[in-house]
Amino acid sequence: MYDVGNIAIIGSGSWATAIAKIVVEHTHHIGWYFRRDETIEQFRKLGHNPTYLTSAHFDTNEIRLSSDINRLVQDYDTLIFVTPSPYLKGILKKVKHKLHDKFIVTAIKGIVPDENLVCSEYFRKVMKVPEENLAVIGGPSHAEEVAMERLTYLTVGCTDTEKAHALTEVLVSNYVKTKVSRDVLGIEYASVLKNVYAIASGICSGLQYGDNFQAVIISNAMQEMERLLTSINPLQRSMVDSVYLGDQLVTGYSNFSRNRTFGMMIGKGYSVKSAQMEMEMIAEGYFGTKCMKEINRHLHVNMPILDAVYNILYEGISPKVEIKLLTDSFR
Amino acid sequence: MYDVGNIAIIGSGSWATAIAKIVVEHTHHIGWYFRRDETIEQFRKLGHNPTYLTSAHFDTNEIRLSSDINRLVQDYDTLIFVTPSPYLKGILKKVKHKLHDKFIVTAIKGIVPDENLVCSEYFRKVMKVPEENLAVIGGPSHAEEVAMERLTYLTVGCTDTEKAHALTEVLVSNYVKTKVSRDVLGIEYASVLKNVYAIASGICSGLQYGDNFQAVIISNAMQEMERLLTSINPLQRSMVDSVYLGDQLVTGYSNFSRNRTFGMMIGKGYSVKSAQMEMEMIAEGYFGTKCMKEINRHLHVNMPILDAVYNILYEGISPKVEIKLLTDSFR
Repeated sequence: MYDVGNIAIIGSGSWATAIAKIVVEHTHHIGWYFRRDETIEQFRKLGHNPTYLTSAHFDTNEIRLSSDINRLVQDYDTLIFVTPSPYLKGILKKVKHKLHDKFIVTAIKGIVPDENLVCSEYFRKVMKVPEENLAVIGGPSHAEEVAMERLTYLTVGCTDTEKAHALTEVLVSNYVKTKVSRDVLGIEYASVLKNVYAIASGICSGLQYGDNFQAVIISNAMQEMERLLTSINPLQRSMVDSVYLGDQLVTGYSNFSRNRTFGMMIGKGYSVKSAQMEMEMIAEGYFGTKCMKEINRHLHVNMPILDAVYNILYEGISPKVEIKLLTDSFR
Repeated sequence: MYDVGNIAIIGSGSWATAIAKIVVEHTHHIGWYFRRDETIEQFRKLGHNPTYLTSAHFDTNEIRLSSDINRLVQDYDTLIFVTPSPYLKGILKKVKHKLHDKFIVTAIKGIVPDENLVCSEYFRKVMKVPEENLAVIGGPSHAEEVAMERLTYLTVGCTDTEKAHALTEVLVSNYVKTKVSRDVLGIEYASVLKNVYAIASGICSGLQYGDNFQAVIISNAMQEMERLLTSINPLQRSMVDSVYLGDQLVTGYSNFSRNRTFGMMIGKGYSVKSAQMEMEMIAEGYFGTKCMKEINRHLHVNMPILDAVYNILYEGISPKVEIKLLTDSFR
């Protein structure tokens, strides 16, 4: 059995904190990277992440908090990256140690900006990490529910199945169940597309389309996702697997989804800028839409929902007109 | 092109009224069966169904309302049955005319009690209607949304594709889009199972399982549905098609779903009887669960969700225990 060795978490948001909680319950030791020393000090005082998922308490004796990414990379065998995708490149620029002999796990849902690569592709192509040392953690997983220890199913994708199984060993618990998959790229691209489709679903809701149509747009989104995934990674896969469908449902059918809320505002007539100002944030799917559109310029997959969201967000075409056209393409 | 001829609707509930509205907009004449003459009189006075979907107005000159099922059967070529499934046998007992040369369309979501047959099977096996004269209307479709003319996608299933297309011609409009399928049995069984799974989803919600798990139970439900459908009608089908996934989403993810509400009460600790009394009705999925369990005794398909719901509703096993066991079977 492959040994994942000791584990460091790179990232400090909600999902990073949820994964840290899951892992440290098993290993009783993790390294954990925070960018700022002030945050680390506060964490030590409070016994929890001062900013995100504050309800998850930690025994600080079990955590080596550090703002020195190079010491962590040097001292740990398995690195779980859970940063927002726009920050990944900046963090990796600081790393002087070679990564090729590390087990690199990404739990990042997004595309590396300017590169139009999902994270595992970036590690493989740019950081020269061999494919069998790359894994991804996917599945429907609101971090807040993990903090509350509500039952959650995670999927570990890795082309090396033994490594995938080894990683599941440090994730499984009475509230986390796991499975393995070989579809690293499929899981990553699905997690980017789900945000695009959550925006689409929100736009339709904002335009007063009803539940009948919401069910149709999600069904068509899953068909579109299947076409793209088949083009990128031609494996046998079942789209009703929880790592694809389940993750889409948690994002696209939840009113708490930022991407869905953003779409809803666009559908109601807000401009992109005013929706972003009102929300005081930029929904990930906004960037995901542009990246996927550019990636698909070379793939030529039939993706009418992606095209519609792109035209609305980036070409200033009226949501009403664009969604009306979209409905004609649906089956 | 096949000609559907003139059309009669058999049934007086919400979905029957929605279909009547859709069809009469095309044909400007329909026959429409109501059991009671008082209801017909009231309909004529009000210009709408007095009891269901009262917001859908009709030109009564375009409708031949009748309580004489035999006159309607005799005079009309295409009969669309939209009764609750428990009433179908009773209505058909009154019919003296042979049905084998009629085009029989069922938009009934349910199983014929005591027979453990879906409606098209009952028409074929008991009423001797040949397979090519049988069609089904499926798809995600809250009747209330059809009344509001919100965009809805319907699927017509018929082994005779020409007939399926002919029927779509009288359904399509600016708010109804259609597609065809050959999977009559699959569509019917899916529409029974979705209610069972909506109950399961409600039970888990009542037990305080979160959104992460809801996404997983729906994903697993779709996998279970696929196994059953493959066993009953071994066609190539995509489970993310709107007639399967979309219909499940409209039922299983909606808090307005009676089946989901029923399940939620069971999950919260109500007995079956007290939940039914509180709701003043019996959720269709309650019967569907028993029928599907009996049907599957011969098919031996692996259906852990159906089994769990059956054990909870009919064997008095605690929802908490049963769902805990179920979660161990999930992937």
